[in-house]
Amino acid sequence: MDLTKEVAENVKWLSNIGADPTGGTTRLLYSDFWLEAQNGVKQRLSDIGMVTSFDAIGNLFGRLEGSKYPTETILTGSHIDTVVNGGKLDGQFGVISSYLAVKYLKEQYGTPLRSLEVISMAEEEGSRFPFAFWGSKNLMGLAKKEDVSEIADFNGVKFVDAMRNAGFDFKDEEETLRKDIKAFLEIHIEQGNVLELENKSVGVVTSIVGQKRYTMILKGQANHAGTTPMKYRKDAIYGFSKICSQSIDKARLVGEPLVLTFGKVEPKPNTVNVVPGEVLFTMDCRHTDQNILNDFTAEIEEDMHQIADELGLELTVDLWMDETPIPMDKKMIEVIKNVAEKEGINYRMMHSGAGHDSQIIAPQIPTGMIFVPSIDGISHNPAEDTKLEDLVEGVKTMALVLYELAYVD
Amino acid sequence: MDLTKEVAENVKWLSNIGADPTGGTTRLLYSDFWLEAQNGVKQRLSDIGMVTSFDAIGNLFGRLEGSKYPTETILTGSHIDTVVNGGKLDGQFGVISSYLAVKYLKEQYGTPLRSLEVISMAEEEGSRFPFAFWGSKNLMGLAKKEDVSEIADFNGVKFVDAMRNAGFDFKDEEETLRKDIKAFLEIHIEQGNVLELENKSVGVVTSIVGQKRYTMILKGQANHAGTTPMKYRKDAIYGFSKICSQSIDKARLVGEPLVLTFGKVEPKPNTVNVVPGEVLFTMDCRHTDQNILNDFTAEIEEDMHQIADELGLELTVDLWMDETPIPMDKKMIEVIKNVAEKEGINYRMMHSGAGHDSQIIAPQIPTGMIFVPSIDGISHNPAEDTKLEDLVEGVKTMALVLYELAYVD
Repeated sequence: MDLTKEVAENVKWLSNIGADPTGGTTRLLYSDFWLEAQNGVKQRLSDIGMVTSFDAIGNLFGRLEGSKYPTETILTGSHIDTVVNGGKLDGQFGVISSYLAVKYLKEQYGTPLRSLEVISMAEEEGSRFPFAFWGSKNLMGLAKKEDVSEIADFNGVKFVDAMRNAGFDFKDEEETLRKDIKAFLEIHIEQGNVLELENKSVGVVTSIVGQKRYTMILKGQANHAGTTPMKYRKDAIYGFSKICSQSIDKARLVGEPLVLTFGKVEPKPNTVNVVPGEVLFTMDCRHTDQNILNDFTAEIEEDMHQIADELGLELTVDLWMDETPIPMDKKMIEVIKNVAEKEGINYRMMHSGAGHDSQIIAPQIPTGMIFVPSIDGISHNPAEDTKLEDLVEGVKTMALVLYELAYVD
Repeated sequence: MDLTKEVAENVKWLSNIGADPTGGTTRLLYSDFWLEAQNGVKQRLSDIGMVTSFDAIGNLFGRLEGSKYPTETILTGSHIDTVVNGGKLDGQFGVISSYLAVKYLKEQYGTPLRSLEVISMAEEEGSRFPFAFWGSKNLMGLAKKEDVSEIADFNGVKFVDAMRNAGFDFKDEEETLRKDIKAFLEIHIEQGNVLELENKSVGVVTSIVGQKRYTMILKGQANHAGTTPMKYRKDAIYGFSKICSQSIDKARLVGEPLVLTFGKVEPKPNTVNVVPGEVLFTMDCRHTDQNILNDFTAEIEEDMHQIADELGLELTVDLWMDETPIPMDKKMIEVIKNVAEKEGINYRMMHSGAGHDSQIIAPQIPTGMIFVPSIDGISHNPAEDTKLEDLVEGVKTMALVLYELAYVD
């Protein structure tokens, strides 16, 4: 098979389902386009001789029964949903790559010793409903009815109604978890610029960062910009600027893989001739080591309170996301690395700075992740792209790893 | 006359013309409420025996002819227009105070030696059309037809149509300026918190600050907050925060009367998990000394470029307002100060950090300004207020100064 041609055709085909007239793809959980995509993937999996099925909530599986160890399953895949006006690779390239890797292996080597399964997960982005990882959390028995029973999308459509309308429903909570899955492998675009800047085609993921997200409010006093002497001001944006510059200075000193971002800043009243009386801002901090993440954020929180006190400002801190770092499985990392070494693939070891389905699966199943570069680090955007040869290199790596896992005794 | 009762009644009456149902007053140039207010003031000036007239563009005058030096005119007043949802004192208290001071003087001392004129200026705020000081600039021959011939309000109504609709029109540009005005006196709320914090009833204004206003754009690169290592970032908000904190630190060191404000900050895309790729921000800097203002802003502009260079950011600087400081007339300051001393008025000398009609008039006519306190420094807001006894103290000071100017030989 011509892998380059297959990759190009499949990416084009799948990203076209839900394509926005203005560019990009919008394929939200349980929408018509979502259903069309899942059914399209189902057909393609079926066409290469896999036995296909949906679980209760809409995760799609294609299975190739193993000849020697049929009860040992090697699972591979990613998610089928996109963000609003998303790119053509996030999630869906993982589904396509798993499908093509299995297609290639079957053509080259026939039936595997262990069972091979491709999964096209229902949802990961949290972009229609305020709930993310619905696909992988259901797979791992971590989703609860009550998590979604009251939520609705931006048009007021309830999660439960959308799900049932698409022909799916809650899992039977009594259902026991599958014990046959011995490994999970996911490929994804990096969504950053490390591979590109360092001229690598493939990243071997060692862990997924933990992340904390905060919203802070600094309250001072709004005053006339001309008539209020500096000594009588309680300038919220001055407080923010001290916090932001000092914290990022410290983050740069701590060094990689720590990242710290002040992404949203909203002063009030936000006008040229009024001293800002209040500012709302967000902070996003990530690291692969829970202790370092905890210690660093504790230190800068303390700094913030000190700066606020010094300037007569009131600070409120709301930590609304606190996810622990998730290491990938040591043996899986070794397998991927060895394959890359042996085949002369231009790779590097790296962590993932973004969240992925693998972080939900890894605590229970040996999990490995492969990255391919993102041009200019862009993702969640119609401009999201990867050189075709890098995508092909990713599929090739995936196929070689699945060969090691499913075809070698 | 009961000055306290008169002040209270007049403020209530005038601020009621254009009162918003939700609080505050909106009385924009050439609106129906504006015309109602000017005609109301005209009536009250007429009722105390002043000869009233409008000039071509709608400045209202009330004149009391002097008995000995009728060709020497002492002018006093302020502006009648308000900002959208403004307070009950900005501008209009100046008109009321001038009217009541003249009423009091006439009742107490009869006809003045020099002519006394009250002016209710058409416009100062620039809150309906993008042009400010229309009243005082016309008075001083500084307004040009072409400044307003193309501008329109937020509803698309052209300046020229609004003016003609209200019954006014451009001045004859050949008209010579009045040579009879020997002094101008304006009273205004401070719009700051200095008098209140220092427990003073009256401020004697020594000068009006010069001000420079800028809009800056810092451009970096928007990146994923998780997947972009710190060393690969071009973080625009980090650049802003260094500029803001360092510049304000320096401004505080320079000391009074320098003020520096970063009032508007708009990062893009302004979301928690994206490194801001761009930030637009404003800077407002004021001082009473042109050299210090120039030197200080030149220094921090240089700092900004250096910070931008260090962080790999592009900086564009747009200086869109550059007004020179305007000193009040030395003799007028002396007269006001002497009156305050003699009468035991609780006053302080101070500069004005905000712009006023006096800054347009002062370069050509000896001009003095009196401030009364603003509670909590609030203005341009329905909560704008001043203790009644301070308003009365202001009117009293004004009357005593006008007495010195118009009744003493």
